[in-house]
Amino acid sequence: MDNSDNKVEVTIAGRSFKLTGYDPEYLKKVADYINAKHEDCNSSESFKKISWDLQSLFLQLNIADDYFAAQAEIEELKKELEKKDNEIYDLKHELVTSQMKSGRKP
Amino acid sequence: MDNSDNKVEVTIAGRSFKLTGYDPEYLKKVADYINAKHEDCNSSESFKKISWDLQSLFLQLNIADDYFAAQAEIEELKKELEKKDNEIYDLKHELVTSQMKSGRKP
Repeated sequence: MDNSDNKVEVTIAGRSFKLTGYDPEYLKKVADYINAKHEDCNSSESFKKISWDLQSLFLQLNIADDYFAAQAEIEELKKELEKKDNEIYDLKHELVTSQMKSGRKP
Repeated sequence: MDNSDNKVEVTIAGRSFKLTGYDPEYLKKVADYINAKHEDCNSSESFKKISWDLQSLFLQLNIADDYFAAQAEIEELKKELEKKDNEIYDLKHELVTSQMKSGRKP
């Protein structure tokens, strides 16, 4: 079976590899983000001094840090949504009460 | 100046390094997440066959993939919040109209 049609080449930190199961445009976006991280870290003199192995692990940590920040934002947004839901519930209740008072059926 | 008090040791993929500026508990959580990724990938025979360099870059991609999924969830939640805000605006407007009809000041 030839899977070559599904393979997408990606270049990260100057090294290329082929992956299956990814949309090429999405993969490019993710690779661009990682390459920007590499460039950003490489601007630090202390980062350049450590071994490539440790640099790579540090980058994993750096990306995971962004992921956890996004997760924290998700939690905050969910809390905000819950507040809005409660506000909507209260407003609907208040509206029904008001409509009953004004003689209209809710 | 002795910065040793601020340094936190973290172990990722069996390699330890020291970082400053992180809360130890948070750093442990992030390291646990990355180590789970390493274990997960290492359960794949094809992953084991590639060089450590490529394994490490693949893990960066894998973590960034989680980050982009979280970003997509943030976008969805923001859209949902906007819808709720519009619903709240409409309900408040309807409530004021109803209260005016029933003779109450809004």
